[in-house]
Amino acid sequence: MTTELYPRERLGQVQEATARAGLGAVFLTPGPDLRYVTGYDAKQLERLTCLVVPAEGEPFLVVPRLEVPAAEESPAGSLGVELVPWDETDDPYALVARRLPAGVARVGLADRMWAVMALRFRAALPGAEQVAAGGVLRGLRMRKSAAEVAALREAGAAIDRVHRRVPELLKAGRTEREIGRDIAEAILAEGHTTVDFVIVGSGPNGANPHAELSDRVVRPGEPVVVDIGGTMPSGYCSDSTRNYCVGEPPADYLAYFRVLEEAQRVSCESVRPGVTPEAVDAAARDLIAAAGHGEHFFHRTGHGIGLESHEEPYIVAGNREPLEPGMAFSVEPGIYPGPHGARIEDIVVCTEDGHEPLNLTEHGLVIVD
Amino acid sequence: MTTELYPRERLGQVQEATARAGLGAVFLTPGPDLRYVTGYDAKQLERLTCLVVPAEGEPFLVVPRLEVPAAEESPAGSLGVELVPWDETDDPYALVARRLPAGVARVGLADRMWAVMALRFRAALPGAEQVAAGGVLRGLRMRKSAAEVAALREAGAAIDRVHRRVPELLKAGRTEREIGRDIAEAILAEGHTTVDFVIVGSGPNGANPHAELSDRVVRPGEPVVVDIGGTMPSGYCSDSTRNYCVGEPPADYLAYFRVLEEAQRVSCESVRPGVTPEAVDAAARDLIAAAGHGEHFFHRTGHGIGLESHEEPYIVAGNREPLEPGMAFSVEPGIYPGPHGARIEDIVVCTEDGHEPLNLTEHGLVIVD
Repeated sequence: MTTELYPRERLGQVQEATARAGLGAVFLTPGPDLRYVTGYDAKQLERLTCLVVPAEGEPFLVVPRLEVPAAEESPAGSLGVELVPWDETDDPYALVARRLPAGVARVGLADRMWAVMALRFRAALPGAEQVAAGGVLRGLRMRKSAAEVAALREAGAAIDRVHRRVPELLKAGRTEREIGRDIAEAILAEGHTTVDFVIVGSGPNGANPHAELSDRVVRPGEPVVVDIGGTMPSGYCSDSTRNYCVGEPPADYLAYFRVLEEAQRVSCESVRPGVTPEAVDAAARDLIAAAGHGEHFFHRTGHGIGLESHEEPYIVAGNREPLEPGMAFSVEPGIYPGPHGARIEDIVVCTEDGHEPLNLTEHGLVIVD
Repeated sequence: MTTELYPRERLGQVQEATARAGLGAVFLTPGPDLRYVTGYDAKQLERLTCLVVPAEGEPFLVVPRLEVPAAEESPAGSLGVELVPWDETDDPYALVARRLPAGVARVGLADRMWAVMALRFRAALPGAEQVAAGGVLRGLRMRKSAAEVAALREAGAAIDRVHRRVPELLKAGRTEREIGRDIAEAILAEGHTTVDFVIVGSGPNGANPHAELSDRVVRPGEPVVVDIGGTMPSGYCSDSTRNYCVGEPPADYLAYFRVLEEAQRVSCESVRPGVTPEAVDAAARDLIAAAGHGEHFFHRTGHGIGLESHEEPYIVAGNREPLEPGMAFSVEPGIYPGPHGARIEDIVVCTEDGHEPLNLTEHGLVIVD
């Protein structure tokens, strides 16, 4: 078993999966799919960069002449994949079409490929049906290797360090935006390459799960939901939510917060191989509904995480594909009755016989002064 | 004439352009097209957010239930467009299909829509041909309004302030990465919301137009190409390249740098309504070739800029669509003979009778100590 994060054998695995799916080739433009397969963190630009993995024959990487040095220096440069440069006045879509084996009837497109590129490929290959390459890659990407789990563990530890610094930053009299800016700096300072999101939902804004940072001033006695995440140099993402209050929170808040703590814990503990995401969702939802807060929990319980902050598997009603070891996802039920709300979120990994939590800070309400 | 950056009448203009293009509707997911039409800077997520602009009838904005507060608070919330929320277990693609007028035969997709969404729309609307919405929007987006030019001018002034700070940051003995990190902070400190790119190409790395930041230490006598840009709170982008040297540069460098200065100046001065982008490209290229450096200038002369750092019009051989007032683009020839290279880049706007430069710092080599 490899200990590399981006092992060389992945390209062969994708080629096999492409053939198994009945596709003639997959086209991977810059984004998480290309990075997963090659380690190449290419920029998404208007000039086409595309790894073509045919079901049979040699893969090749089409790159704008300007990007050749970056592609050569990237991990993709040492995979033995032929680089096919194109010049400013060439048509790279026609170039791909010419090099494809004859008679390709179906091709897979990277899920995040720009539509304008998908449409150019359609014109260049009018006989080829297009499907989402995600269907080919998901089986691989959902089951994290030991190296990927280690990368997610490192990301979890980094965001935990940020949460431990929140009590210094979250003070009555400061605005959400001021606090959010300091948290963003801490996300970078604790080892992330990019800040993916910073939610500081104070008082009524805590009842909006996707609240934007505002100029609202935090006041004593107001609960604050802090949901933060970033991307590490490895490419892997962090995401964790904790709840804070300057001084004593309202009594009604404490009552439902206890329900939430229990629901989040029970939902995490339900994670093991063979259990469905739907059942993990229901574990939290049923408890919250039983306490009379069913209507105050109106989002899914979680999402997969890896090279994307949101990816498969989604922890939602209707998803009955059993969990397997290596699947990594958030467990983040919330209760939002207003005029405040709460959410507790950990990333967990399904193990051989249960789950490993990747966020280890205190789950309870953190009182700051 | 409106003085607003995101005027309300734009939605009607897009609807007219949709009808003129023979499309039944355009689908705008989060990205520059959606922002251009509504001012809504929506996050690109796996959950579908989509403004549907039918050629006839009322536009509507499909939004995940969780994003409704953000959509309502955004400029899109005051356009009088119906918000159509969907819940976690709904199919938003089927929802769009049901609400479309019957018999829509062709639809336009936002250029940057994710392929996985384009394919879901294809399945939900199997009878509708898909084309790039860029074809509908380009006529509007390429011709900047006075408010857009003002936003680009503000972005140009911000990146100029960063270039003025480079001499404090670029010192012999520091690495490109250290210098680049400080420049990135200055880009934010001078008013940008995001850092889009930072190129610090020292010595031989200056001969690679898209060099990544490296751990190479800058040495005395080495020319350094600094190409930087970011996005302002307005949504509009900056992009400017200047050249620096710690102490005296090599004599051969000075010889071709003089050619480059002249070529960049002449190319800018060629900009006026009716001139083709191809001719603006040739103005720089012919001069550089005449000086014997034709093979050392191997990229196009420029790219349009606005809500994207790279957009139409591209200043490249083969583009014969005449310039018009309001078109904004970079003029950035380079000469890369090795073991060093140079590029000079300004954003310019085509005016009624010539051009307005938006980057006003000294074009000559800046000697730092």
